[in-house]
Amino acid sequence: MSTLKVIQIGVGPIGQKVVKYLLEREGMEVVAAVDPAPDKNGKDLGEVCGLDKPLGITVSANLAEAMKNSKPDVAVLCTTSSMEKAVPQIEEIISHGLHVVSTCEELSYPWDTQPGLSKQLDEAAGKAGVAVLGTGVNPGFLMDFLPLAMTAVCRKVESIKVSRIQDASVRRIPFQQKIGAGLTLDEFEAKKQTGTLRHVGLAESVQMIAARMGWKLDRTEDILTPVVAEQEITTGYVPIKAGMAAGVRQIGKGIVGNREVITLEFVAAVGQADPADTVEITGDPPIKSVIPGGVNGDVATCAITVNAIKTIVSAPPGLRTMADIPPVTFFESF
Amino acid sequence: MSTLKVIQIGVGPIGQKVVKYLLEREGMEVVAAVDPAPDKNGKDLGEVCGLDKPLGITVSANLAEAMKNSKPDVAVLCTTSSMEKAVPQIEEIISHGLHVVSTCEELSYPWDTQPGLSKQLDEAAGKAGVAVLGTGVNPGFLMDFLPLAMTAVCRKVESIKVSRIQDASVRRIPFQQKIGAGLTLDEFEAKKQTGTLRHVGLAESVQMIAARMGWKLDRTEDILTPVVAEQEITTGYVPIKAGMAAGVRQIGKGIVGNREVITLEFVAAVGQADPADTVEITGDPPIKSVIPGGVNGDVATCAITVNAIKTIVSAPPGLRTMADIPPVTFFESF
Repeated sequence: MSTLKVIQIGVGPIGQKVVKYLLEREGMEVVAAVDPAPDKNGKDLGEVCGLDKPLGITVSANLAEAMKNSKPDVAVLCTTSSMEKAVPQIEEIISHGLHVVSTCEELSYPWDTQPGLSKQLDEAAGKAGVAVLGTGVNPGFLMDFLPLAMTAVCRKVESIKVSRIQDASVRRIPFQQKIGAGLTLDEFEAKKQTGTLRHVGLAESVQMIAARMGWKLDRTEDILTPVVAEQEITTGYVPIKAGMAAGVRQIGKGIVGNREVITLEFVAAVGQADPADTVEITGDPPIKSVIPGGVNGDVATCAITVNAIKTIVSAPPGLRTMADIPPVTFFESF
Repeated sequence: MSTLKVIQIGVGPIGQKVVKYLLEREGMEVVAAVDPAPDKNGKDLGEVCGLDKPLGITVSANLAEAMKNSKPDVAVLCTTSSMEKAVPQIEEIISHGLHVVSTCEELSYPWDTQPGLSKQLDEAAGKAGVAVLGTGVNPGFLMDFLPLAMTAVCRKVESIKVSRIQDASVRRIPFQQKIGAGLTLDEFEAKKQTGTLRHVGLAESVQMIAARMGWKLDRTEDILTPVVAEQEITTGYVPIKAGMAAGVRQIGKGIVGNREVITLEFVAAVGQADPADTVEITGDPPIKSVIPGGVNGDVATCAITVNAIKTIVSAPPGLRTMADIPPVTFFESF
């Protein structure tokens, strides 16, 4: 098979890692990159990604410029968590006839949260003859695709519970800051009001599960609270005193009548005990599946994005989700 | 959506359970059944399945007879583990324009073990415009689809190990007999030579994983040994003395050069400690996933067969496998 040409759009921390992972893989080639940031635009992509040698690819300020000198087959888009911001970017990309794999969290299953934009994007992709996918470790895998896939062996499913419990001590400092580690509870509450503490994608995971199970949800909930340090914690980038926030607990629920059929619990806290990714299906047979220690989120999101390229380029045109394409897997050659 | 009409072909223990599960589901209707066995042919399907009321469906002796009075959309085929035996049956079914979901183990991934028959079947299904799938809990899910799906979040995969450790005490008597529980080691060896102790499908699972990972295997191994009772076991249908076979251990390997890249360990023994289904991926990140207690095989195979109907009727025509169709899941309505 001929080599698949990839353009990387957005060269922040995630985009940089995607580029590194792409360089490791056979059958795929990075041919262009776009990032309008003044410290990236015009520089060599290798330099921007912190590699020890240049790649001979200059980061373009915009897509039109990048397309002048390259003929990519697929774009990897790592610019935003917001569907609203992503859609105009994707519409521009697909107008060039490129498939799209994006880490945009809200794109992972936008059919219920953003039905209008989803339909618009689906139609545009269909017309352009390309497929568009939002993926990542979560949303996109651990709390939606994986529990859905597990229900394959069930005669009956009454409810699905997924928990992702992470010890943030081992994560990047920006991640620890993002989850509010080291804030007083008042500071945590203030930051919560700004919306920046929120793990984006829980609502989308709830909706993906509900749609695929055929459950019509009467309501959903999304509850965010601090994980409070019971004693001083010194494993993070700042010491956290007892009574301060060590991180965040976010619970997404899907409810039919008075039955909580979907419960997604996302916990990320410095010093958190017993990290694990757990799926519990109440049904016949009941299934409990545990990944002790949990999946490393930084590696996993970039890996699944790269792996999804192979699946998306042969998927039916339109807005796709992880629930309606063949399984994304690692592969040694394209 | 209109109701999907199903014909059940083969009404042995698995076929009977599939019928029961189909009757529970919305959007699917059993409209006909075929089984040439003298104790089934001509009887009401409800009676054959041990239901407390007739279904008004007479079990036909052959497909031609069944098709005279019904217009099914899809056939569920539960007649054989053998690809060679299944292919002529499937060719007859698809000549009527029906999609096929089958529990035939060797059909789960026959591309490497039976390349000629696979190509022949793929072409016939393509011409008929229908999709054909072999599935089940194993092969079809636990030791192939599931580990493959888990690799989605890996930047690199070096090897995959899957173990399915079952305590056969809780399984049907025929299952305990099938695994040689209660045989002397000489009797076990004699039975092994007849080929009836073998878990069918391990080779297919090895090949499905290898193909999807892009690993060209230099050789495969399939090793079958008894699990020997260390002390008397009384939890099975017959007492098992120390030194006798309590069950079977089968190991399937896929080897590249001198690297064992795929290891599938299937153990089923009466009194077996710590039953579990475990996936271990050596890679980045490494992933270990455990289903403590394991998945109940009898329920799971019939459930995944019923669940796969929804996915297969909209899959591209041809011979499909669990690795190349969207994820099979439970669903409440069609």
